[in-house]
Amino acid sequence: MTTVFIDGLGLIGASLATFIKEKNSSIRLLANDPNNENLNYMREQGLLDKACSFEEGAKQADIIILASPVAVICQRLSELAELPLKEDVLVSDVGSSKVQIEQSAQPLMAKGVAFLAGHPMAGSHLTGAKNVDTSRLVNHTYFLIQENCNQEQVAQFEDLLAAAHFDFRLVNAKSHDQIVAASSHLPHMVAFALASTVNQAREASTVDWGKPAAGFLDATRIAKADATMWTSIFLSNPKQILAELDDFEKELSRLKQAIENKNATELFDDLKAAQTARLQMEKE
Amino acid sequence: MTTVFIDGLGLIGASLATFIKEKNSSIRLLANDPNNENLNYMREQGLLDKACSFEEGAKQADIIILASPVAVICQRLSELAELPLKEDVLVSDVGSSKVQIEQSAQPLMAKGVAFLAGHPMAGSHLTGAKNVDTSRLVNHTYFLIQENCNQEQVAQFEDLLAAAHFDFRLVNAKSHDQIVAASSHLPHMVAFALASTVNQAREASTVDWGKPAAGFLDATRIAKADATMWTSIFLSNPKQILAELDDFEKELSRLKQAIENKNATELFDDLKAAQTARLQMEKE
Repeated sequence: MTTVFIDGLGLIGASLATFIKEKNSSIRLLANDPNNENLNYMREQGLLDKACSFEEGAKQADIIILASPVAVICQRLSELAELPLKEDVLVSDVGSSKVQIEQSAQPLMAKGVAFLAGHPMAGSHLTGAKNVDTSRLVNHTYFLIQENCNQEQVAQFEDLLAAAHFDFRLVNAKSHDQIVAASSHLPHMVAFALASTVNQAREASTVDWGKPAAGFLDATRIAKADATMWTSIFLSNPKQILAELDDFEKELSRLKQAIENKNATELFDDLKAAQTARLQMEKE
Repeated sequence: MTTVFIDGLGLIGASLATFIKEKNSSIRLLANDPNNENLNYMREQGLLDKACSFEEGAKQADIIILASPVAVICQRLSELAELPLKEDVLVSDVGSSKVQIEQSAQPLMAKGVAFLAGHPMAGSHLTGAKNVDTSRLVNHTYFLIQENCNQEQVAQFEDLLAAAHFDFRLVNAKSHDQIVAASSHLPHMVAFALASTVNQAREASTVDWGKPAAGFLDATRIAKADATMWTSIFLSNPKQILAELDDFEKELSRLKQAIENKNATELFDDLKAAQTARLQMEKE
């Protein structure tokens, strides 16, 4: 019997637990979470076999999935290097920044423990097990970074989550961090800044604005995301995020200049290129 | 019998036509549009009584609604000042920038023609009559700028669109332009720049990114909007838009500095404030 231990039953951890049990209900699922609500909810759903401490779960597991905020994942990887784990254990994680996690996993990997870093490219601004909606993850991209494990272990992990029909893609940690800096971290940064700016304008206004337009609400939906989680993510991938932010600011300056210069042709060309790119990306 | 003439049967013009006919099917609806597809579609829906030239429609109308891009609205207002209109005609528009429109309407108003500027705060990145989905507009804010008309005419206009249950709000042109610069124009500008930036990073990458995450797609949905329309909007409200853009860049710099300084407390406080504001705005 395979025992899987998930550290962190938040939205992603609980989603993975659901997929694991869907594929193979005989798998024994252990979990640790600082929030009892998550544990109780998953127990009620019949998806959690036992809540336990991190140490207890880690020692018993054949597969360990670290699904806490990035800073905690890094801490847990150090702790795992000090624990007596099963010989064939496979350690994975779902953290959003891979270079830092790779560094934190060095002592663990130096002991010969198999580590397959991972990151499902889907989620929600909602948090916690009770907000799990597995349809948000099905068919999405799931990056894997084959740190210290063989093909068989990659296949074992993919099979564990087969119910989700993820589009697994092997990349290295640096490429991963570049990709998510642009495709996920930058959009979140922009959404947080946009929500703040518009709110300040609204509060400074003497006029009641009424219901916000759908465009603004969509553009800032991800600013409803958890501030603790995103503080951790932004600080774990600073170099790549700042590089993307520079590129974004340059793009914004181009549009700004076209407006200042009343250059309709240049402005139209830039907007048209952005629109075309956006429509194209949606199709992929 | 009341005759309404709509110049421009795009998404907004066709939506208003639908509401008008829904409330009072005996109203005679005339329309002009450079795109025959829009006219044919609305005729097939039984919502258009007659397609006609701008001049012909304007002369016969009791109510004229200008629903073309802002630059065209300004042009039409000048043309209207030269045409023999019905004595009690009420002219309105749906343009996104009001100060410029107000200026363009001066010759018309100087002739004593009643002008009630307007702007429904809802829409879609989709364009054209065939994409009308009136549920996108129902219950939304509709700003009115009482330029040169009396209370009775405001009431007449609100009654014409009663089927939409708009939340009509009277503001002045300058306030309107400040509000939309922040709540609509800035989000669009940001979405266009974000879509371009992420696309460039994706094209420069040697790795296939797979399906884009839902967060990015939501944050840039409005970058799918029509480039011609948005060129016209950005160039019609430059001062206010550039002011909002400055505020946004300052906000982005705050986050950037917190990341550069690894200041988790400051970063968390900023993200939390943005998240709280965003959740609050949604409730309003």
